[in-house]
Amino acid sequence: MAFSEFRPLDEKSLIEYIKATPVLSNKVGRNYDDLKIKEVGDGNLNFVYIVVGSAGSFVIKQALPYIRCIGESWPMTKERAYFEALALKVHGQLCPEHVPEVYHFDRTMSLIGMRYLEPPHIILRKGLIAGIKYPYLAEHMSTYMSKTLFYTSLLYRTTTEHKRDVAEFCGNVELCRLTEQVIFSDPYKVSQYNHWTSPYLDRDAEAVREDNVLKLEIAELKSKFCERAQALIHGDLHTGSVMVTSDSTQVIDPEFAFYGPMGFDVGAFIGNLFLAYFAQDGHADSFDDRRSYKEWILRMTEGTWNLFHKKFTAFWDKHKDGPGEAYLPAIYNNPELQQIVQEKFMKDLFHDTLGFGAAKMIRRIVGVAHVEDFESIKDDSKRAECERKALDFAKLLLKERRRFQSINEVVSAIPA
Amino acid sequence: MAFSEFRPLDEKSLIEYIKATPVLSNKVGRNYDDLKIKEVGDGNLNFVYIVVGSAGSFVIKQALPYIRCIGESWPMTKERAYFEALALKVHGQLCPEHVPEVYHFDRTMSLIGMRYLEPPHIILRKGLIAGIKYPYLAEHMSTYMSKTLFYTSLLYRTTTEHKRDVAEFCGNVELCRLTEQVIFSDPYKVSQYNHWTSPYLDRDAEAVREDNVLKLEIAELKSKFCERAQALIHGDLHTGSVMVTSDSTQVIDPEFAFYGPMGFDVGAFIGNLFLAYFAQDGHADSFDDRRSYKEWILRMTEGTWNLFHKKFTAFWDKHKDGPGEAYLPAIYNNPELQQIVQEKFMKDLFHDTLGFGAAKMIRRIVGVAHVEDFESIKDDSKRAECERKALDFAKLLLKERRRFQSINEVVSAIPA
Repeated sequence: MAFSEFRPLDEKSLIEYIKATPVLSNKVGRNYDDLKIKEVGDGNLNFVYIVVGSAGSFVIKQALPYIRCIGESWPMTKERAYFEALALKVHGQLCPEHVPEVYHFDRTMSLIGMRYLEPPHIILRKGLIAGIKYPYLAEHMSTYMSKTLFYTSLLYRTTTEHKRDVAEFCGNVELCRLTEQVIFSDPYKVSQYNHWTSPYLDRDAEAVREDNVLKLEIAELKSKFCERAQALIHGDLHTGSVMVTSDSTQVIDPEFAFYGPMGFDVGAFIGNLFLAYFAQDGHADSFDDRRSYKEWILRMTEGTWNLFHKKFTAFWDKHKDGPGEAYLPAIYNNPELQQIVQEKFMKDLFHDTLGFGAAKMIRRIVGVAHVEDFESIKDDSKRAECERKALDFAKLLLKERRRFQSINEVVSAIPA
Repeated sequence: MAFSEFRPLDEKSLIEYIKATPVLSNKVGRNYDDLKIKEVGDGNLNFVYIVVGSAGSFVIKQALPYIRCIGESWPMTKERAYFEALALKVHGQLCPEHVPEVYHFDRTMSLIGMRYLEPPHIILRKGLIAGIKYPYLAEHMSTYMSKTLFYTSLLYRTTTEHKRDVAEFCGNVELCRLTEQVIFSDPYKVSQYNHWTSPYLDRDAEAVREDNVLKLEIAELKSKFCERAQALIHGDLHTGSVMVTSDSTQVIDPEFAFYGPMGFDVGAFIGNLFLAYFAQDGHADSFDDRRSYKEWILRMTEGTWNLFHKKFTAFWDKHKDGPGEAYLPAIYNNPELQQIVQEKFMKDLFHDTLGFGAAKMIRRIVGVAHVEDFESIKDDSKRAECERKALDFAKLLLKERRRFQSINEVVSAIPA
């Protein structure tokens, strides 16, 4: 351990830290003269340093005991770094192609040293705002989600392993509570943290707070989030937690990871694709009306679910005689039954996905933390128009999710 | 600590142990000459000693590292005593009137010293077989279940407390696994432990193993059992875990306790009342045709659910502005909405109750551990007839539970 007790690093003390930490100093060939260090933490929570030397590079991410974007007034355990490192390692073993490697973790310092995702990697959300098409996005994200969710569920694991890991991740309760508040509670009540494009959406925000059916549905999803330990989920899988190039897709920032409902991850990603879709009209200009790009987003959304479904059930088929204890081979041993149970499981997961996805959309429009997709639309009235369409669609999804049988039906339900 | 390492007690070493343990020796006034000690462990798992002296009495329950009724060939952690003591304390604080007091717990020895439920307390199951009416049974059991389940759920608690306690009880995984096997798995496959009244029920047992719809339903319930941490449940709440007199009802043996679905407890109790009902024809004789008693059991079953519903929702109303985080008052703050969410919650809980209750019935007829209600019917053919009716009704419940709106409808569905 480089430092014996926690201290927030700055660029100067970071160099001391690297020098005292062999795995990091070796990465840069113990050459500190040409080291370039840049603080790039543009997320909401942490400090992130890119460290590049002539021999190699890495990223240092340090959690401070509060939420960065709000300040010391909103305390938040720095132990989240421990759960982030643990989730990166577990998910990284299951899906190394889409999870950056962890080189170093220091629990005392709440500090992770990990792969630097070098340019041209950018945050997917920024790419979606810029109108860039990523041909492998659905392919890669469906691989990441199917591997991490299937292999940490009872479809693949024993209840002994499951209960042990559930207990461990119960320790990440503070981050879970943050989600409970900002996704499942605040948007549905008056809260000092809520904001929206005012005055345009004043009535819309009020309508969310007065909608009994919506509140009934969000309660069901909140219970599932709090009570159902289905798989080790990322917990914050929006398009700002994914870095991309034209052929690389890397999932970062799993500090909200815990054993929760699978649909929360799949829904987060799909819900944020829908947000990207609804924001496109605000990015259209005389050079690009974004119509083709909007189509591409919808195809990508369909592809994400359909490929996820295909890969997830393929893992299930492959391991149906494996260690998973949810469906013992001695009981679920005939092809007809295997198909019935899979269809039921996937239908329930699909409806969870739509519900959680809708909840993630709603909170980005009338809750505390908004998305750059909309925020980057400068004209208030135009932004409000995009946001209202997204909000109305999300409300429909949340209330009527059970009537959809396929993602194509869902996409078709988007008003022209 | 009386003994520094674990050893199974016998009557002689038990006296040494009592002498060395002030809270126990004080109970009997440190007078050992007239001490009466009797081993009465007629359950499946543990050794139980009744200790009665002139000044006082208590029970000593010791868990051994295997399942008593099967022997050392089926190992089972003796740590279960820790979770039993913990559950007795938590549930005892919530509902002291129906949970025996714990005087002493010794983790090293896996030993609990607790209140001796003096005669005329008998095991409820034996009372039901004898045809004894307990006028307060529904009243008392609904109080016990509503208090223990409501106050350990997110309807009353914060997610911080919840996750901490969920993590703790994840440690009781071995007992959970025993339930998974004997209730949710073995009856639906060929297993060396299964048995039934052969040859009469050979086809019935086979039919359970070949019923795809039944297997689909039991999978859903198993997932809920393994994944849904809804409340601190007793985990084994059959009529053999309740001791009664005409005016006292005491719930014992919560060694299977963990955070699981509420319906598992309510269903266990109601399912076992149904078993008692279906066994009555086997106990009828020329002096008592048991018709009146069968009616009484059905009224008691209805009363148990209806009173549970009433008390549970009354606690909810009382504490709707309390610490529970599932339904925040700032969101669920209008009477109409409060009623809608309660109705939905109670309907789901009712269907869980019927499903788990049915699963508990099925496993008692074609699984490893049977019930004295049926076992005490000496005539094989008559026993099989009673069991078949119970099994058929349980299969109906498991498959069609969602169509029932009230317990009275369920009772009406029993064939005349």
